[in-house]
Amino acid sequence: MSEESSLLKGSTSMNDTMVEEVEERDPESNPLNEPLLKRNRTLSSNPLALVGAKVSYIESLDYEINENDLFKQDWRSRSRAQVLQYIFWKWSLAFLVGLLTGIIATLINLSVENIAGYKLLAVVNFIQNERYLTGFLYFTGANFILTFVASILCVCFAPTAAGPGIPEIKAYLNGVDTPNMYGATTLFVKIIGSIGAVSAGLDLGKEGPLVHIGSCIASILGQGGPDNYRIKWRWLRYFNNDRDRRDLITCGASSGVCAAFRAPVGGVLFSLEEVATWWRSALLWRTFFSTAVVVVVLRATIELCHKGKCGLFGEGGLIMFDVSDVSVTYNVMDVIPVVIIGVLGGVLGSLYNYLLHKVLRLYNLINQKGKIYKLLLSLSVAMVTSICQYCLPFLAKCTPCDSSLSEVCPTNGRSGNFKQFNCPNGYYNDLATLLLTTNDDAVRNIFSTNTPLEYQPSSILIFFALYCILGLITFGIAVPSGLFLPIILMGSGYGRLLGILMRSYTNIDQGLFAVLGAASLMAGSMRMTVSLCVIFLELTNNLLLLPITMIVLLIAKTVGDSFNPSIYDIILHLKGLPFMDANPEPWMRNLTVGELVDVKPAVISFKGVEKVANIVNALKNTTHNGFPVMDCGVVPTIGVASEATELHGIILRAHLIQVLKKKWFLKEKRRTEDWEVREKFTWVELAEREGNIEDVAVTKEEMEMFVDLHPLTNTTPFTVLESMSVAKALVLFRQVGLRHMLVVPKYQASGVSPVIGILTRQDLLAYNILTVFPHLTKSKRK
Amino acid sequence: MSEESSLLKGSTSMNDTMVEEVEERDPESNPLNEPLLKRNRTLSSNPLALVGAKVSYIESLDYEINENDLFKQDWRSRSRAQVLQYIFWKWSLAFLVGLLTGIIATLINLSVENIAGYKLLAVVNFIQNERYLTGFLYFTGANFILTFVASILCVCFAPTAAGPGIPEIKAYLNGVDTPNMYGATTLFVKIIGSIGAVSAGLDLGKEGPLVHIGSCIASILGQGGPDNYRIKWRWLRYFNNDRDRRDLITCGASSGVCAAFRAPVGGVLFSLEEVATWWRSALLWRTFFSTAVVVVVLRATIELCHKGKCGLFGEGGLIMFDVSDVSVTYNVMDVIPVVIIGVLGGVLGSLYNYLLHKVLRLYNLINQKGKIYKLLLSLSVAMVTSICQYCLPFLAKCTPCDSSLSEVCPTNGRSGNFKQFNCPNGYYNDLATLLLTTNDDAVRNIFSTNTPLEYQPSSILIFFALYCILGLITFGIAVPSGLFLPIILMGSGYGRLLGILMRSYTNIDQGLFAVLGAASLMAGSMRMTVSLCVIFLELTNNLLLLPITMIVLLIAKTVGDSFNPSIYDIILHLKGLPFMDANPEPWMRNLTVGELVDVKPAVISFKGVEKVANIVNALKNTTHNGFPVMDCGVVPTIGVASEATELHGIILRAHLIQVLKKKWFLKEKRRTEDWEVREKFTWVELAEREGNIEDVAVTKEEMEMFVDLHPLTNTTPFTVLESMSVAKALVLFRQVGLRHMLVVPKYQASGVSPVIGILTRQDLLAYNILTVFPHLTKSKRK
Repeated sequence: MSEESSLLKGSTSMNDTMVEEVEERDPESNPLNEPLLKRNRTLSSNPLALVGAKVSYIESLDYEINENDLFKQDWRSRSRAQVLQYIFWKWSLAFLVGLLTGIIATLINLSVENIAGYKLLAVVNFIQNERYLTGFLYFTGANFILTFVASILCVCFAPTAAGPGIPEIKAYLNGVDTPNMYGATTLFVKIIGSIGAVSAGLDLGKEGPLVHIGSCIASILGQGGPDNYRIKWRWLRYFNNDRDRRDLITCGASSGVCAAFRAPVGGVLFSLEEVATWWRSALLWRTFFSTAVVVVVLRATIELCHKGKCGLFGEGGLIMFDVSDVSVTYNVMDVIPVVIIGVLGGVLGSLYNYLLHKVLRLYNLINQKGKIYKLLLSLSVAMVTSICQYCLPFLAKCTPCDSSLSEVCPTNGRSGNFKQFNCPNGYYNDLATLLLTTNDDAVRNIFSTNTPLEYQPSSILIFFALYCILGLITFGIAVPSGLFLPIILMGSGYGRLLGILMRSYTNIDQGLFAVLGAASLMAGSMRMTVSLCVIFLELTNNLLLLPITMIVLLIAKTVGDSFNPSIYDIILHLKGLPFMDANPEPWMRNLTVGELVDVKPAVISFKGVEKVANIVNALKNTTHNGFPVMDCGVVPTIGVASEATELHGIILRAHLIQVLKKKWFLKEKRRTEDWEVREKFTWVELAEREGNIEDVAVTKEEMEMFVDLHPLTNTTPFTVLESMSVAKALVLFRQVGLRHMLVVPKYQASGVSPVIGILTRQDLLAYNILTVFPHLTKSKRK
Repeated sequence: MSEESSLLKGSTSMNDTMVEEVEERDPESNPLNEPLLKRNRTLSSNPLALVGAKVSYIESLDYEINENDLFKQDWRSRSRAQVLQYIFWKWSLAFLVGLLTGIIATLINLSVENIAGYKLLAVVNFIQNERYLTGFLYFTGANFILTFVASILCVCFAPTAAGPGIPEIKAYLNGVDTPNMYGATTLFVKIIGSIGAVSAGLDLGKEGPLVHIGSCIASILGQGGPDNYRIKWRWLRYFNNDRDRRDLITCGASSGVCAAFRAPVGGVLFSLEEVATWWRSALLWRTFFSTAVVVVVLRATIELCHKGKCGLFGEGGLIMFDVSDVSVTYNVMDVIPVVIIGVLGGVLGSLYNYLLHKVLRLYNLINQKGKIYKLLLSLSVAMVTSICQYCLPFLAKCTPCDSSLSEVCPTNGRSGNFKQFNCPNGYYNDLATLLLTTNDDAVRNIFSTNTPLEYQPSSILIFFALYCILGLITFGIAVPSGLFLPIILMGSGYGRLLGILMRSYTNIDQGLFAVLGAASLMAGSMRMTVSLCVIFLELTNNLLLLPITMIVLLIAKTVGDSFNPSIYDIILHLKGLPFMDANPEPWMRNLTVGELVDVKPAVISFKGVEKVANIVNALKNTTHNGFPVMDCGVVPTIGVASEATELHGIILRAHLIQVLKKKWFLKEKRRTEDWEVREKFTWVELAEREGNIEDVAVTKEEMEMFVDLHPLTNTTPFTVLESMSVAKALVLFRQVGLRHMLVVPKYQASGVSPVIGILTRQDLLAYNILTVFPHLTKSKRK
């Protein structure tokens, strides 16, 4: 107790010693717990995070309904027709999100299949004519150019388009505004960059980018168009708020997953399990609608493209592994290989997370040096990939074709399961089958069933080793990249290898082993269960696989969880995004919000009718986004004329800036009437977040005038008593989706302020609290 | 405004006028909005609801963590080993829930298939020998006895075992304690009753009962055994709280659905979409584990029972419609019949809901008359069912067998698609195929694919009409009954009929039409989407059906929602269970919690160290379950010696009764030390909810003694300002899972009480609020 009180004696002095103490530590001592950014070690620090490649100020979103007079007025005035209009547009937007995501996904697939297809056809031609060097130069040259296009776009125009985008979307849906994530430029770069990067044969997928693309489409549609060309339709104003945008982006993310895997239910569940923080039944059902539309679009385009009408685009590269005709037979003893795969997946998945984290930290150092370094990094990775893909197959021995199989062997076309490569007729090169093809085809080939002798163990081993290295070095480069495909490739590698080793022991098909390996590594790295299971169910179209898939996923996740958090959580932490976890830490029960408030600077509050000068000063000198509004007076309910302070509510910085901009000033100190504020402000304007206090010019005369803050104040803020534990406050904050939480005193007396502090997202993050209350770390370890 | 203030003048006088006003209304004028129970029209009314057949006092559950000193002590003292033990047992319980649900589901299937099978075989024998009357007597007699067993058990031993149990589970997971729902007797009666009722050929399923059975198993396991024989193991104490019980029951409900349809993902989603109110990722994953266990158990038992080892039990009656081999071809124009099915499903589903509601009201009147009436009702319904099932097939003409089909025709066994019944050799009776069989087989037969000419339209029409009537009259009788199967039978009827009518127009198989019809009626009545879709996906094992299933479900739900709420919501409302909806009503934004508190009786609070007499009086004279605890004193933080009141927290009735029972009284008015309370109470004891104030005897001497309430007070109650809108308060209440919500004043002054009221679940229900503030109804209609 004495230790604690001495710690809390003065917040400034303590913070100084804290900073010193922290900097003495070896920054690499516990790298998983240290984000890339160095921050001030006080609860009142400015929140910063990496978005794209840039360090940005991070703000919270207003998911809470701001119930001020204007809102209530607007709400009451909505007619039944307007409500119906809102519902109609809500569904139309969900429809459009699905439609556009489906179309863009088809376009990407079409481009990738054609670009990569013609590239591979040319290379195969060169090889058939034994012009190996020309083939090599053509292959690497084409991949160089494609990577260059993808990378230069990302580096110069939209740094936020690099990577999968899923962690940022996850943070956004948790309530963190991630700037520049959902613009038209980002969307454009993501589409083109994704086509380039995937066609270049890099070890990355289009799945993550598609999730981001879906979210971009949703966000742009919701605000009526790209930032500078927004349609200002009347009905759109209803969607110009963080809540509706959140719902739309959830639909977009689901549509993206659905488009990537043609897995409508899997897409919905992916959003539910991995991406979204809040969820309600109504949203489940709207998201489902979006994914249904995507599936219909995909089906329709495949029908349209039937029989070579769309160049080399065939089945759309979507269903990667349809095993609905394969009879799956397994008995109780097959549980042993299944358990082995699960454990391996968990161990390798967490190892992958650990190593990838290291690589990303290293890449971050390189990327920080400048744009040219970013570009060079991407191009070197592309070169390494191309060289390996082209040269390694020469190491493999040629295998004679098995005439008992009905498939064509050897094949020389763009796809096919038995690539001839450098082999004589009647023979095929099994490593070329896996490497010199698109990633989608590689997955299809390694998943192939009823071909137990197709691959030599050495070839699979080379394949696995190569994709382990590529999977680690590719993800962090400046191109749009998804994590699903690299993990599937790695996982299928060791899965199939295990299948070959266990051939004599079990009669589970090797293709199924590969599938299970992929599933286990995904569960071991991404730690999803139900959604992964459904995605695999929809990919394989075979329900009999479900029980063993479930067991593999459960084991892999459990094993992985005992080592480190999921890859997305690691990236979130690395980027410094203030993500709020569902479960409070145990030590949070021993800390009250009152103690948190004590180490923060005193709260700045306004009177109901406040002087302009005070407002301007407060806005200029602080970065707070919310200010309590209080009135002094006499309590009407009790007879005695006692001096009382009334908490009227909380007002947002954005609204104060609007007031200053519009110069809604009063000469005398008085309360305004309803119509006065309605004349000046509309609800639509208040929904805008733009505006900076530096842009506002207030004359000296105006400084002495007054503003009536009452009509703009949110009169229904969520409050907690100072004795509330941080654990419960966190649950409230997250569940209700707050931005500001007012702390009120547990005492009722004259002279006590009705608000003793405001807590925000940053104040409730375990990491931030522990830097101020380091003694809690000990109790945590106990 | 004046209208409002006059309304609020005095709560008692207003309530009187309110009651009169309400009773003047025609009680049948708006039947859907009137629960069966007549209640007092004040917010402080005692909550009553129908559980089983009995009107019970309904209490809320304590999902909020009661953070009092004892809890914190207990929490801090938990060693790492204990935490691991807790996690281990949490998962073990999830495993056991899955295992036992799987085994019991198999047992039920085994019994049903054997009982119903041998019964039908005997009947078929009589018919073959043209002993029609004997057959009739045998058939009706057997069904009579089976129904009698099921019904007498339900009526005499466990009235809560009647019906599906899903609405009560839904209410439980929403925070309403439904007494006697999860006992061992209920479980036993539910199992035996379900076997009897399903074997008797009644128009009901085992799906709903299985959900209830799963929940019972979960609850009994969680508390360490049946009520009177509970194992008092140390680790079990961790599960003896409402939160952990809620999680277990969620696992149980999912396992039940999974066992009913062999749909593990569907089971999880059913809980998520339809049953559960709170959900978190960790629970998703534990639930999934339970359903995985169920699937493995089901698979294992089917393997064990292979080839007639378990009597007539074959594939387990579980996969009702495996169409994985049927090639589904459809084009864009097939959208039209799909849309028609969807619209029909929505219209018929909501009509079914409407009519079923009427029937249930009528049945309730009959059931209230006494046990013998309940029994007679069940038996009459069973007789009507048996007579129709036996006699109607005689109306159908015999159809010649189609020799081009590979199936056996005609069949005389227990199952089979072409029943000979009364027809000559080479002919079959299509109506007997649908009626004189188990419900599972009836579904399988009407779903049969590639048999376009099997059924005459007139037969399907008779089948549909019969099951419409049976579906309405069967559900409310006193036997365990599920709603899924009757709805599937009805839906498949009109689906197949539509398929026959559209034969020339589309090439979608008639079997698929039947499936889509069943799906549409389920969506139209139960209003589920994602979970139904996945259940149908897992039932049909054909992914190509997914897009059209989705469209049908979306349309049916939309159409149905525009007429009335889902059938479960209707039953919840009918039973008077205080279910809290996710979305607040729009008019709730215009009402503050302060206004709600004003119409309630003044709050009764205790001092930190309170006189025993005051506690006893308060407990005897009120039915409140929570009391605020306040201290008077001087605020330590501000220097001036101002008179202050401190809100210490809230104490539960159950804990006060424990104090009185244990006579933890103090001679003098003083605060106790930590060890004093730990000596007397353990955390385990405080988790018990039993105890009645009437059972407590306090002597006159003791009445003058004191109790220190501090260590037993939950110091972190959730609070809202009196200016908070009801809409937001409701969101908080539901999202965080509260039982009591303290309303604190927005004023800060001496002499103001720190708590001006307590709101509970009943106070926040739209229905209750509207009876006190009828003017809001008008604004609602506007």
